[in-house]
Order: sequence, then structure tokens, then C-alpha cells
Amino acid sequence: MKSLILFGHGARDSRWREPFDRLASLWKAQHPNVLVELAFLELMQPSLEDAIASQVAAGSTEVLVVPVFFGQGGHLRNDFPVLLKACQEKFPEITLSATPAVGEDEAVLQAIVDFSARAL
Amino acid sequence: MKSLILFGHGARDSRWREPFDRLASLWKAQHPNVLVELAFLELMQPSLEDAIASQVAAGSTEVLVVPVFFGQGGHLRNDFPVLLKACQEKFPEITLSATPAVGEDEAVLQAIVDFSARAL
Repeated sequence: MKSLILFGHGARDSRWREPFDRLASLWKAQHPNVLVELAFLELMQPSLEDAIASQVAAGSTEVLVVPVFFGQGGHLRNDFPVLLKACQEKFPEITLSATPAVGEDEAVLQAIVDFSARAL
Repeated sequence: MKSLILFGHGARDSRWREPFDRLASLWKAQHPNVLVELAFLELMQPSLEDAIASQVAAGSTEVLVVPVFFGQGGHLRNDFPVLLKACQEKFPEITLSATPAVGEDEAVLQAIVDFSARAL
């Protein structure tokens, strides 16, 4: 069973996570057969490890992590691979993989261009 | 004359700005008559004030700032309004406005859902 983790930075202000909650809700509405969970690098819960543990407990054998970040800086180039490797070692029985940051996706960038054009 | 500023957080790693540069390039290709500039809250140049100054010098009279952030936490709820107000006071002759964060836009979130679905 495959499952999805939407992985964000996290922030002190709890309202920061609203778009992440909306993302998870959109996913659930459109892909009800694929378990989704949010996870955060810091300042918010659950951690990536806790989210993976929850999905493994629910029967997932292949977890895909999507970093919901624009740029790929130190967090994604340095911290994230180490974290992912540590999680893979904790759960050797599953296949754990990750996409590039969503900011690398042309359609995501195009949606931002279109949003800006509508607002202008 | 209207112009657009795409406003990001900034990061130490210069590669972090790659999607922002791509965003500006997409805008220029699709909306060549509307001047666009990037600006950053911290760690990268130009600052919002410098970007506005550059657009005013180029003849802009209405500057729209689009925060390229997912969540609206302390940076956007506290720091950004203060910064925007200070910029408006520096350039009283122009109309300065801002949209919500791009992460509030349904189409941006949908693009992330679609990106995740393609990767799964």
C-alpha cells in the first residue's frame, strides 16, 4: 500500500499550517484511497518519523514524501536527506522515497504566475 | 504604470532562489509589458524597499507585492505589514498593495496535489 506525506517547514504561529491542512483535505477529497498525512521539519507536529510510523501502522509499505517548499536551500539539501535516511533505517521494511520540492514544478510556478496576473 | 514584485523569504544557499528566478522568467515571457522584480525578506537581495525604488525609477506608479510563501505565520502577519507600511511612507507618490500569500490560492494548492499524484 502506497501513502503520501506532505512535508512542510513548520512555524510558531499555528495559523501558518492552514494551507497545509487545505492541501491534505484536497488530497483526501480527490484521492480517498491513498492515505495522506502532514509532517513538519520543525516547530510543528507530527515529525516526519511520527508521520511515517503512523502510516506504517496503518499498513503502508511505500511512503512518498513531497517537500512543500519553494526553494531548495539548506533545509532540503542538507537536513532533509539526513532525516530521510534516518527514517529509512528506522523502518527498513518499507520503501521510502521523496520528490523534489514542489517549487521545482512548472505547473506550481504557473499557478503562481496566474494568481499574480489575476490580482494585478 | 503597474508593476509586480514577487516577494520571498530568502535563504543562505543561493540555489534556494532558483524557483523564484524561474517564476520571474515565466512572468516576463507571458506578461512582457508588466515589469517584474523579485524581493526578499531576509538573507537575499534586493530588499522590498530596493525593489520598489527600482520600479519607481522605471516609472511604476502602482506596485503589487505577491508574497511567495505557503503559510501566513509571523513573517507575513507581523513583519510584512510593517515593512509594507514603511515602504509606502518612503514612496508616498505610488499605490502600494499586496495579495495574500500564494499558498492561499486554490489553484496553487491544486497544482501541488496534482504534482504529488503524478509522483505517486
